[in-house]
Amino acid sequence: MQRYKLLIEFDGTDYAGWQRQKNAPSIQEALESAVKGFCGEQQDVCGAGRTDAGVHGIAMAAHVDIAKQTTAFRVQQAINFHLGKQPISVVGAEAIAPDFHARFSCMRRSYRYRIINRRPPLTLDRGKAWRIVPDLDAEAMEEAAQILVGKHDFTTFRATMCQAASPVKTIDKISVQRNLQEITVDCTAPSFLHNQVRSIVGALVAVGQKKWSQTDLQAALDAKDRTKAAQVAPACGLYFLSADYGP
Amino acid sequence: MQRYKLLIEFDGTDYAGWQRQKNAPSIQEALESAVKGFCGEQQDVCGAGRTDAGVHGIAMAAHVDIAKQTTAFRVQQAINFHLGKQPISVVGAEAIAPDFHARFSCMRRSYRYRIINRRPPLTLDRGKAWRIVPDLDAEAMEEAAQILVGKHDFTTFRATMCQAASPVKTIDKISVQRNLQEITVDCTAPSFLHNQVRSIVGALVAVGQKKWSQTDLQAALDAKDRTKAAQVAPACGLYFLSADYGP
Repeated sequence: MQRYKLLIEFDGTDYAGWQRQKNAPSIQEALESAVKGFCGEQQDVCGAGRTDAGVHGIAMAAHVDIAKQTTAFRVQQAINFHLGKQPISVVGAEAIAPDFHARFSCMRRSYRYRIINRRPPLTLDRGKAWRIVPDLDAEAMEEAAQILVGKHDFTTFRATMCQAASPVKTIDKISVQRNLQEITVDCTAPSFLHNQVRSIVGALVAVGQKKWSQTDLQAALDAKDRTKAAQVAPACGLYFLSADYGP
Repeated sequence: MQRYKLLIEFDGTDYAGWQRQKNAPSIQEALESAVKGFCGEQQDVCGAGRTDAGVHGIAMAAHVDIAKQTTAFRVQQAINFHLGKQPISVVGAEAIAPDFHARFSCMRRSYRYRIINRRPPLTLDRGKAWRIVPDLDAEAMEEAAQILVGKHDFTTFRATMCQAASPVKTIDKISVQRNLQEITVDCTAPSFLHNQVRSIVGALVAVGQKKWSQTDLQAALDAKDRTKAAQVAPACGLYFLSADYGP
């Protein structure tokens, strides 16, 4: 049995999320079916994180064990072949030690959120970004975001269905950058609560629209109360960017 | 009657091209239907250029005459409303003098071609770029492209169905730039022959793969013979970028 680390890119639009579930297509199930198609083995494909329905992946990390004698290159090629026309692609593969675990070995996860700040409806970026009509002040968003960096109780920015044991999380970095009409929010942390990034982006958008001041954002964080959150940003703008396993 | 200049963004994947035609959906027809939905008038929407099936638009210029008393802002909003869920969007609109003509006043057109140079199948960029597996030398492509700049007989790089009176065209500029795995080819000229950009990109890819030398490209141009062309790049990577009407 050999363990392989995989990097997965996917368009999550038509999937119910990363995680295998009954009666709905998932990225994980598609990968596991492709692995079975390749080597006949029913193996778990374990990801670095879970993503909600409609969330995309740029380099989601995962691992899978395969008994069949093969190479990382052939694993990558074969999974991609068996994925057929599905918008899921193994963009990296390497043989790795059996103590590597895509979820438990992961030291930091990064997500990206894409906002297109304009009035006209999206065409080429449809389903790939959140269109926001009112002008957003990206510098104000970047400044306010720094309030959230560090270790905090993120109860305000947590989904009701979140299963994490504790609402306390440490955010390493948030950056907000504008490039013409596109605003990109990148967020890195050892781990996240359910909907935390989307809820943070929603709050930063409230700041960008001048609906919230930095004081409002601080008060929302301090309240530790979900009802004090702004809106939750839609799934289609969110991308699992990368998983960091250290040196 | 007031003339309006429009800038149109569109995802051409599911359209038979810009131009109105029988029994196939076109960008032009979608826009004309939206205009009719707005003001009840059956008006021509005249574009700066034609695009083939599957080709996209970033800022295709067009003009339309509307008798109804209104404003450019309302024209833009109303067309976008009546386009409904179609991936076509008016991203700019202005009232303009009646002697402005989107096609005949246009001094220069720019196209962009997107190549993703990697082995794994595309997901997020599917239908929006040409995936090429073998490593491409973008610097060699950029260098060779300069052979095509200037006034030449482009018979080699012309579709059989091209209706232009003369195969002689003047290319103002071609640039080839790599950003990680993405290679962008931008091409500007007063006007183009049918399939000229896609045929040029196909030839530059032959150079990038070291199948063609600069001498081969020069010989293909000099031959003035379609059978001496390399492959024609697929439509999905091509974008009508902008139309230049001078100061």
